[in-house]
Amino acid sequence: MIRVGRARAHTNIALIKYWGKRDKALFLPMNSSLSLTLDAFYTDTEVVFDESLTEDYFFLNGQAQSAEETSKISRFLDLFRQETGENRRARVTSYNFVPTAAGLASSASAFAALALAVSEALSLDWDRQTLSTFARRGSGSSTRSLFGGFVEWQMGTGSKDSYAVPIDPADWDIGMIVLAINTERKSISSRVGMDHTVATSPFYPAWISSAKTDLEAIKEAIKHKDLVKVGQITEHNGMKMHATTLSANPPFTYFEPESIRIQGLVRQVREELGLPAYMTMDAGPNVKVLCRASDMPALVQELAKEFPKEKIITSLPGPAAYALTEQDWLETVKAFEA
Amino acid sequence: MIRVGRARAHTNIALIKYWGKRDKALFLPMNSSLSLTLDAFYTDTEVVFDESLTEDYFFLNGQAQSAEETSKISRFLDLFRQETGENRRARVTSYNFVPTAAGLASSASAFAALALAVSEALSLDWDRQTLSTFARRGSGSSTRSLFGGFVEWQMGTGSKDSYAVPIDPADWDIGMIVLAINTERKSISSRVGMDHTVATSPFYPAWISSAKTDLEAIKEAIKHKDLVKVGQITEHNGMKMHATTLSANPPFTYFEPESIRIQGLVRQVREELGLPAYMTMDAGPNVKVLCRASDMPALVQELAKEFPKEKIITSLPGPAAYALTEQDWLETVKAFEA
Repeated sequence: MIRVGRARAHTNIALIKYWGKRDKALFLPMNSSLSLTLDAFYTDTEVVFDESLTEDYFFLNGQAQSAEETSKISRFLDLFRQETGENRRARVTSYNFVPTAAGLASSASAFAALALAVSEALSLDWDRQTLSTFARRGSGSSTRSLFGGFVEWQMGTGSKDSYAVPIDPADWDIGMIVLAINTERKSISSRVGMDHTVATSPFYPAWISSAKTDLEAIKEAIKHKDLVKVGQITEHNGMKMHATTLSANPPFTYFEPESIRIQGLVRQVREELGLPAYMTMDAGPNVKVLCRASDMPALVQELAKEFPKEKIITSLPGPAAYALTEQDWLETVKAFEA
Repeated sequence: MIRVGRARAHTNIALIKYWGKRDKALFLPMNSSLSLTLDAFYTDTEVVFDESLTEDYFFLNGQAQSAEETSKISRFLDLFRQETGENRRARVTSYNFVPTAAGLASSASAFAALALAVSEALSLDWDRQTLSTFARRGSGSSTRSLFGGFVEWQMGTGSKDSYAVPIDPADWDIGMIVLAINTERKSISSRVGMDHTVATSPFYPAWISSAKTDLEAIKEAIKHKDLVKVGQITEHNGMKMHATTLSANPPFTYFEPESIRIQGLVRQVREELGLPAYMTMDAGPNVKVLCRASDMPALVQELAKEFPKEKIITSLPGPAAYALTEQDWLETVKAFEA
């Protein structure tokens, strides 16, 4: 006997950052965060619970994964098995649809897609918010990838109410440009970076209180469809997150030389074209630019004068995670192999 | 009738940064700071009060300066004229002895040298601390350049007690390596940068309170001649200052792409050689490395594999500002012209 579920979840970029846990085991965050789900980047996942299996298997982009990677998936599946009484082992097959240059393979879309695929396989009647509390324990930011448009991950008071909530479908003139920067340095993982920051930065309490202020302000700006204000808050909040890494002890940074150059380029293009275009960065060197979708062609044309065009990827806001049919899945496999 | 004074003052690099004024007119700082005076960089200045002059003149490096630059000098001289009743105009001649590549032409050595030259010309019997309260009104950091070695600029309670105090002659195994980075971008001046940060950064109060903690800790480490601890505090404090610029609204940075590359290089060399070498940066792209003087040859050799050797300048700790004789001055002019 087998049970099969398949789902697609899109990645999301935080405009108000998640940066620090108050409970590392339960992935409870220090502050509520807010993101934009992106159409251009997603993960498709199939999970097959199969009584003939004696252990879990995990295939990513056509490759069997290591014991270490597989055990992360197993522990995640265990949360569902414990909750539902399901006791079969599973085979998980995932494909990341992220332009190779982007370096955006994200645990957010991965755990959101897996959570929804499991929910489909086991015919769970949980609502999305409840499902997001499970996704959270694979990766905090995956809570937000269960929904589309602007999404808030509410910090909650405990594990049951630390979930994602859709704020606005972002069905207005909004886009994001990703400038993908190659790096040769091994980046500090976001988990290690945030833990070190929480433990050692004297600026951390001010970060938390200003992130709360920013969240209220950006929700108000989203309500008024005020892209300039949304962008200004996004840029300020993201740079504050990076400021906390410089204030950690010892200090560190996710900025690469190229990140600094691109920050300057974005400022310059914004001023020259007089268009709203605001930066954010995560735990890596890439620079992401929030802007109007209708301005993306002009912005890309200008940015491409100083940055390789094939590493500039544009995206519209993306939808909530959704189930895939068997037919969809066959197309996914075919698309990946192409 | 003329009166002539001449002096040399060395630049200083803050290990605990001065970054923000509580009184912009009086140059009263938000926090006490601490620096190391450097032997390799200095300003020589001659001031001639001459009753035949009808206005002040200012020559820098052999060039007559603009009305705007000259008026800064005039306003500075006015402080002394008001205090002493001196009413002659003056001719000020300065030479900066800073390797061209270093881009370290600093107002710190400039106003310290000028203050001491005026004191010599007018035979003032003020002590150095009092003189530093006058230097302060030309440039805050110049207070510290009146003394040698490790120097504290105490924030004080008002204008009269916001002065510099020598902490330690730094006559142990200490050196500084400056990695001079050319920049094509016009940098935001330190005055504009600090004012914007004080006005808009939600991290600023935490910066001030942590700078106070750092100051006490570094004085204790200096007392114990603990270079590793001095270096760790220096690196953390400097990066926190730069974190405040990222947390300003809108955010900005003094980091250039090359600054980030060199930060990585210094970390790498420190780890590879296992030598204490700690970074600091000011309101510009250069990276300065505090280390043991005896380790400088090995560090420079390693750094020079990835950075042009002619842009690596080493310095030992420098002395307090001192008066120059007429003979000294003739040699200064000759040395500059060479």
